[in-house]
Amino acid sequence: MKGLFIGRFQPLHLGHVSIMEAALSEVDQLVVGIGSAESSYTFQDPFTGRERFEMLLRWGADKGWSERIIPVPIRDLNRYSIWVGHVESLCPDFDIVYSNNPLTVKLFKLAGYEVRSTMLVDRGLYSGKGIRALMVKGDTWRELVPSSVGSYLDEIEGPSRIMDISEGGRS
Amino acid sequence: MKGLFIGRFQPLHLGHVSIMEAALSEVDQLVVGIGSAESSYTFQDPFTGRERFEMLLRWGADKGWSERIIPVPIRDLNRYSIWVGHVESLCPDFDIVYSNNPLTVKLFKLAGYEVRSTMLVDRGLYSGKGIRALMVKGDTWRELVPSSVGSYLDEIEGPSRIMDISEGGRS
Amino acid sequence: MKGLFIGRFQPLHLGHVSIMEAALSEVDQLVVGIGSAESSYTFQDPFTGRERFEMLLRWGADKGWSERIIPVPIRDLNRYSIWVGHVESLCPDFDIVYSNNPLTVKLFKLAGYEVRSTMLVDRGLYSGKGIRALMVKGDTWRELVPSSVGSYLDEIEGPSRIMDISEGGRS
Amino acid sequence: MKGLFIGRFQPLHLGHVSIMEAALSEVDQLVVGIGSAESSYTFQDPFTGRERFEMLLRWGADKGWSERIIPVPIRDLNRYSIWVGHVESLCPDFDIVYSNNPLTVKLFKLAGYEVRSTMLVDRGLYSGKGIRALMVKGDTWRELVPSSVGSYLDEIEGPSRIMDISEGGRS
Amino acid sequence: MKGLFIGRFQPLHLGHVSIMEAALSEVDQLVVGIGSAESSYTFQDPFTGRERFEMLLRWGADKGWSERIIPVPIRDLNRYSIWVGHVESLCPDFDIVYSNNPLTVKLFKLAGYEVRSTMLVDRGLYSGKGIRALMVKGDTWRELVPSSVGSYLDEIEGPSRIMDISEGGRS
Amino acid sequence: MKGLFIGRFQPLHLGHVSIMEAALSEVDQLVVGIGSAESSYTFQDPFTGRERFEMLLRWGADKGWSERIIPVPIRDLNRYSIWVGHVESLCPDFDIVYSNNPLTVKLFKLAGYEVRSTMLVDRGLYSGKGIRALMVKGDTWRELVPSSVGSYLDEIEGPSRIMDISEGGRS
Repeated sequence: MKGLFIGRFQPLHLGHVSIMEAALSEVDQLVVGIGSAESSYTFQDPFTGRERFEMLLRWGADKGWSERIIPVPIRDLNRYSIWVGHVESLCPDFDIVYSNNPLTVKLFKLAGYEVRSTMLVDRGLYSGKGIRALMVKGDTWRELVPSSVGSYLDEIEGPSRIMDISEGGRS
Repeated sequence: MKGLFIGRFQPLHLGHVSIMEAALSEVDQLVVGIGSAESSYTFQDPFTGRERFEMLLRWGADKGWSERIIPVPIRDLNRYSIWVGHVESLCPDFDIVYSNNPLTVKLFKLAGYEVRSTMLVDRGLYSGKGIRALMVKGDTWRELVPSSVGSYLDEIEGPSRIMDISEGGRS
Repeated sequence: MKGLFIGRFQPLHLGHVSIMEAALSEVDQLVVGIGSAESSYTFQDPFTGRERFEMLLRWGADKGWSERIIPVPIRDLNRYSIWVGHVESLCPDFDIVYSNNPLTVKLFKLAGYEVRSTMLVDRGLYSGKGIRALMVKGDTWRELVPSSVGSYLDEIEGPSRIMDISEGGRS
Repeated sequence: MKGLFIGRFQPLHLGHVSIMEAALSEVDQLVVGIGSAESSYTFQDPFTGRERFEMLLRWGADKGWSERIIPVPIRDLNRYSIWVGHVESLCPDFDIVYSNNPLTVKLFKLAGYEVRSTMLVDRGLYSGKGIRALMVKGDTWRELVPSSVGSYLDEIEGPSRIMDISEGGRS
Repeated sequence: MKGLFIGRFQPLHLGHVSIMEAALSEVDQLVVGIGSAESSYTFQDPFTGRERFEMLLRWGADKGWSERIIPVPIRDLNRYSIWVGHVESLCPDFDIVYSNNPLTVKLFKLAGYEVRSTMLVDRGLYSGKGIRALMVKGDTWRELVPSSVGSYLDEIEGPSRIMDISEGGRS
Repeated sequence: MKGLFIGRFQPLHLGHVSIMEAALSEVDQLVVGIGSAESSYTFQDPFTGRERFEMLLRWGADKGWSERIIPVPIRDLNRYSIWVGHVESLCPDFDIVYSNNPLTVKLFKLAGYEVRSTMLVDRGLYSGKGIRALMVKGDTWRELVPSSVGSYLDEIEGPSRIMDISEGGRS
């Protein structure tokens, strides 16, 4: 049995981890859609599809779950009425959808899927937006992401990229 | 003689009705462009092109104007300098453009069209954005739309969709 | 009850008419998708979405079926796995699909629709491609299209456009 | 060390297998780009991205290489000058590119990659186009693909889809 | 030796002029990318690619630099990871990049370019956004742009366009 | 007075030169649209927008016409009904269009432009397609292009690229 979980992973944090662990206690493999896969170098989406794929691979390897995690980059279509079909056309088969996002829940239910919501860890704390804001301020963010992701973010100088991006903006 | 009126119809409300009725007192048929036709399931554009087409058909049937109303879905091009050409390439012929939107007025005038503005009903009251906000708050919105649209919105559970969408949002 | 029929209508010819008449003997209204709606001025697709919309409106008016024919321009998506969803998102509701095209039949059946195929008039004779070829050669094509379409093609100088286009080509 | 191999896998056949096996004798993991991932239901590209992802997963599982094969759907960009950047932005890191296609070889070399070409099995025999043609004719194709792919193609009724598609075509 | 400078030029103002003059004291010719070239008639991007091309040509002619200024319209790709490749694929060769925008600096440096930042004139004063806001308020903006651009903006009635656009907005 | 001439320049050859020289005997400056600007590395369109921009700049410099030639990359829109508007939105103002292509002539005339056709040099001889075919065969092509373009094609190893591309192809 396979599950599907979609996130933007900007960056992959312990909120994502908690959902993926819950899902993997129920299914054999988890298809992990990397949302907005073609976006990068904005405050909203600082990391490339490649970098987010790496975060998932490294976290999966760390957990010994390389065979159980199947990342799939999903580009934005900006047409929600056909978005489930878009996801289906790119991902391997899945049986159950894991999501806490009301729109995702609604769209996959409309398409006939079983959708499971999970107990959320503190959403105020574990959010990509919040972590990016901490990085801009130079505050500590490290305990909010898996250690493999923390090391990777150091390697690609993630926090300094986010600071740079947040300085610019359209004139 | 045919007119053109373009709206997003999120949802079709009495402000739209007042303009379309004014137009249909002057022309035989009204081409009704459904703007942002490919957008849906966002707070800005909750209803699909299909659903907005249905609202127009049902309202037109209710008025006995099925032959006089010609809905045409128009997707966003996000290139206003060629937008009039985009609209022309998809719609049947029209002679006069009805609009109160300054940008629409300007672009169609530049392209040589006669553009007529209509007496506006209270724009603060009859606005899609306002009606969607009422739906989110659970306030009464029903008297702001034609009754055929009110029934249709019940049928597709429109208000609950808008509530769901307004809860989510990017993290 | 509503049906759906999709064609490219380059131009609208008696083959299309025969299918639409068969369909309208079974359903109240026919949603008529204008395929490749954004293509024009090529040998494959010489007429604009607007011109093909006009052909349908004029033929419908001629038959007294203005209320029963609902044309909808459908742009190409070039992603067949989500094409049915694309069509659904733009067209008003329909119950039955009319098609003789094997791919269309397959895709709508996969999506759960009832698909009806119709007795074909001579497909060698009544084909858009064949009619365009006759126009290029200056041969007679008029008896292959409804008379309202013949007059419209004269009005927009359709045959000479097709001749011009067939001369050019990429170098 | 990771390699990259890109194919369209319409379907996955023993020619692909021979290259991937050669690559996996040299690298730890192989990123396998599924080219034209958003195309499907044409004679050129009959299978969806999902179906081709499944072929790779099933073949990999069969070989015991689930951890060593990393499929990544890659949509067409139709802009070869930035195609390497497009692939990089979606795939996890890779060190060496495996390809026998002259254009792919040229573009990745221009971008500074080491590109390795492999001994080809008989290209006339092991080609997606050839296999699809055999399916249309009803000839035997089974020995040209891995057995896991043969079973999967039976499961999704692949050959009959290709026959259907090859009948239609633009009029 | 050639430089590259990219701006949106909404409108071309003395801040741009100061950077271009600094660049042209160091290089023979300056490739001037017109960013967001396909956007127009919004408050953010009121002027068309054509109009901004004209501003650059007229300013260049005025300075006697027609041979030294090479404008190139660059459409948005909204994929920053391949944006440098996009710019390279459209512009003639350039050696040095001039920019004060942190994201542009970062992306071109990553791609191996020498990037030079210039002494900024007062950025609060010389900004497109600020000048557009002055136009909406009917305040004086003329001394913030080159005189050739001021005349051109009069010719195309730029300020009144911006006022009109700022009135509308999505309902 | 300014003219417009659009070509694909794959590569720039003496047929293009003859038209541009004729045009420049009538107008002060020539806007030169580089068609299909985003295509490259195919047999049909082997050279990038950048490379074709360079060919025009080098030829112009060679003739002493750097101020008179204004190259503008134009991407394909594949929507001919709005193509003139697309070209207008990107190019500086022009008064007269020079073209021998029937479709281009028709579309610009429809849009109200004066279109001038020029005496053609032998079109069988001076064609991009013919020159690319000569390059593949290893035949002599040098006398069919301006000498500045011949040198540039040597510099970028153009003929060997075309040979490589013509070997590959979809399987």
